[in-house]
Amino acid sequence: MGEGGRTATVMAAIRQRIAARGLAPGERLPSIRGLATTMGVSPSTVVEAYERLAAEGAVRSRPGSGFYAAAAAPPLTLAEIGPRLDRAVDPLWVSRQSLDGEPEIPKPGCGWLPPDWMPVASLRRAARSLARAEDAVLTDYGATRGPLPLRRLLARHCAEDGVSVGVEQILLTGSGTQAVDLICRLLLRPGDTVLVDDPCYFNFQALLLAHRASVVGVPYTAAGPDPDRFAEAAAAHRPRLYLTNSALHNPTGATLAPAIAHRILNAAASHDVTIVEDDIFAAFEPEPSPRLAALDGLDRVIRIGSFSKTLSASIRCGYVVAKAEWIEALIDLQVATSFGGVSPVAAEWVAGALGDGQHRKHLEALRRRLARARQETAGQLAGLGIRPWLMPRGGFYLWCTLPDGRDAAGVARAALREGVVLAPGDVFSVSRTASHFMRFNVAQMGDPRVLPVLRRALAAPEA
Amino acid sequence: MGEGGRTATVMAAIRQRIAARGLAPGERLPSIRGLATTMGVSPSTVVEAYERLAAEGAVRSRPGSGFYAAAAAPPLTLAEIGPRLDRAVDPLWVSRQSLDGEPEIPKPGCGWLPPDWMPVASLRRAARSLARAEDAVLTDYGATRGPLPLRRLLARHCAEDGVSVGVEQILLTGSGTQAVDLICRLLLRPGDTVLVDDPCYFNFQALLLAHRASVVGVPYTAAGPDPDRFAEAAAAHRPRLYLTNSALHNPTGATLAPAIAHRILNAAASHDVTIVEDDIFAAFEPEPSPRLAALDGLDRVIRIGSFSKTLSASIRCGYVVAKAEWIEALIDLQVATSFGGVSPVAAEWVAGALGDGQHRKHLEALRRRLARARQETAGQLAGLGIRPWLMPRGGFYLWCTLPDGRDAAGVARAALREGVVLAPGDVFSVSRTASHFMRFNVAQMGDPRVLPVLRRALAAPEA
Repeated sequence: MGEGGRTATVMAAIRQRIAARGLAPGERLPSIRGLATTMGVSPSTVVEAYERLAAEGAVRSRPGSGFYAAAAAPPLTLAEIGPRLDRAVDPLWVSRQSLDGEPEIPKPGCGWLPPDWMPVASLRRAARSLARAEDAVLTDYGATRGPLPLRRLLARHCAEDGVSVGVEQILLTGSGTQAVDLICRLLLRPGDTVLVDDPCYFNFQALLLAHRASVVGVPYTAAGPDPDRFAEAAAAHRPRLYLTNSALHNPTGATLAPAIAHRILNAAASHDVTIVEDDIFAAFEPEPSPRLAALDGLDRVIRIGSFSKTLSASIRCGYVVAKAEWIEALIDLQVATSFGGVSPVAAEWVAGALGDGQHRKHLEALRRRLARARQETAGQLAGLGIRPWLMPRGGFYLWCTLPDGRDAAGVARAALREGVVLAPGDVFSVSRTASHFMRFNVAQMGDPRVLPVLRRALAAPEA
Repeated sequence: MGEGGRTATVMAAIRQRIAARGLAPGERLPSIRGLATTMGVSPSTVVEAYERLAAEGAVRSRPGSGFYAAAAAPPLTLAEIGPRLDRAVDPLWVSRQSLDGEPEIPKPGCGWLPPDWMPVASLRRAARSLARAEDAVLTDYGATRGPLPLRRLLARHCAEDGVSVGVEQILLTGSGTQAVDLICRLLLRPGDTVLVDDPCYFNFQALLLAHRASVVGVPYTAAGPDPDRFAEAAAAHRPRLYLTNSALHNPTGATLAPAIAHRILNAAASHDVTIVEDDIFAAFEPEPSPRLAALDGLDRVIRIGSFSKTLSASIRCGYVVAKAEWIEALIDLQVATSFGGVSPVAAEWVAGALGDGQHRKHLEALRRRLARARQETAGQLAGLGIRPWLMPRGGFYLWCTLPDGRDAAGVARAALREGVVLAPGDVFSVSRTASHFMRFNVAQMGDPRVLPVLRRALAAPEA
């Protein structure tokens, strides 16, 4: 274990003793030399751990007198357990600005399509037929796995992507994020390490912080995670999970290459790492690309999906595809923490809209429209010196470099002052090494305010 | 700290070291004498902790050779971290049987009303108007706190119950259970102690197990928790939270008396305990009873509610009412773990049905119908020698003693074999001292199969 890992272990042990009241508020922490001996680390590691705990507020240092447990455990605020950086590069910044921004402000930083890109007519038809549903559909909690017709439909979709599953291996959840969250509850203990791509979807970091996991990034290439660095990280950190998007990776839009997929699976098997493959962008692919879940046959891969990107984010519904024994345990956890599972009316609504004869046509039209928008946005951004890192095969993201090494967080703050929400690179980067990148949502670039604001923000003096 | 608390602390410390890989799989645990000295406990406490960890599977014991860390941390199954008792008295048994039982089987053990007791016509009207909603309502994630109109309505409801709040103090969630879960994420650390009523709603126990909390029960009287025992438990266990229903307590149907409420609040203040008041049965009260949230002014009390019992359990929507600074931290947690908050269409649907001119009349009729059903059920059960512990002022539960000291778990198992789901007392009791009690849902007694099955189950030989 590296120095950072040893420090984290000491910190976790002390936090645990404070949490379990083994160290009462105000009580002196173990002596540095004593704890170093007990835990088999150097005294300097213990000092480092105590000082970081003091910075977190979990312990207090009294100069000349040592370290003491702080008063009561403060509430878990994600800003607090995460790195204390400016909110502009906090993993929750884009979400909070996008979700709570005024509806009419442009949000090229957000992670969803505008309403007029969504199949609103199908949603309205499905709502009208829901108004005529059986009484129990409208009033009851429903079965814990979610309604069977939607699970049957998903089993067929999985088969088309090369993942052969029974309906008992599918659990509907309140959202794709909730599905990942349930898996974290099942498999993670506080202090466990989780690998993510660097860059990755920012909310993976926020979610893992909420589970008090230790997050380690693996550099992401145009063909997937760097397989050598993945194997090194798996060996060095003994991670419990690897959390990724294979097809149309967020934020880069890259697609995992078959040879890389194979190497990642082998490294994961060698080090007993479970893989969570969040396949939320599957429907945007022109043709299916290699899936870890398909190669692995759901042995150590868990597949996640949702309908938020192509159908509706307002009707909350996601799903997990996994080994049957894991599904059973996930059901217990979902009952304990949400009572019941997915909203039955939400699942019926989704099934109605997906089953609508128009849905396949809608997806085809959507893919064509996005391909045009990608080209158009790339052209507009080129005029500002902003260039895509690669041209994705599908989806709505362009991961771009800013000109002249401009700092994306500064540009995003300047744009926000003019009412435009952007997604600066470092919110996606565990190592904070993407400060010159920006993620653009090509479907959200239509507002005429976006380009002038972006031009001015790029020209603004660095903060 | 008592003996049980010390053992739990040692167990937590070892689990933490295994989780943080401070103890690798197969590695020998610290010597019993050495760890006893380090942690300031007796060697017998360490032995007890190691043996319990071995029973859990977290460590392996090799006779004559000591204790070793087990292979990989097993997935968190709630049955496993909870007491290993027969599934019939597992806190998840009633939920799983009720939710996943065939729709047509009678479920006097379940916690909801049959569809024909719910305001189905209002729900259909609201669905039709949702089919005509603005595009963005049907497609977007929506604001993180949930739509303002529903929060305004809830602020008015709170004011009627004597709890004066601003809309910024209300957060909509995916359900009442999810609201409690978010609060646990915010305030609990693994190993923290939480007080609950004994008996209490069984899912509180399941939820707290999922948070790896240590659950301590306080005996519940006909006027609320026993205030002396509450104060003793608060002093002895230093709990972080107390989780309760004040009005129409589940499962007893009792109502908190004002003098008890006052003493509980004082004891909570003395020992810095935060109170979560799950007010899910509020709408069933003939007139509002004392609320901890109202007496306390939301200083150390958090109020929870939902619409599952009087409107729809299929449309998932709950809420938290709390101090504004806690709401901010809860929003971050909800975004990290569910992305976005409540489903906007769910919140609109609820607001539509609640705003329907028929809703107040529906509630009045429902209270009258339940009062009749309580009397009728009490009469029917009396014929079998089953007697209510008290006659509740409202709601749908009767908490009853079985005749001749019959074991409720055995009766419930016998009834289940005949396709009737009952709720045996011990699933509600942290101390497992309610084995002669059974909770009946008076709205679910209408099926003619219930009484004959119950009669036969009572007469069946004890397992």
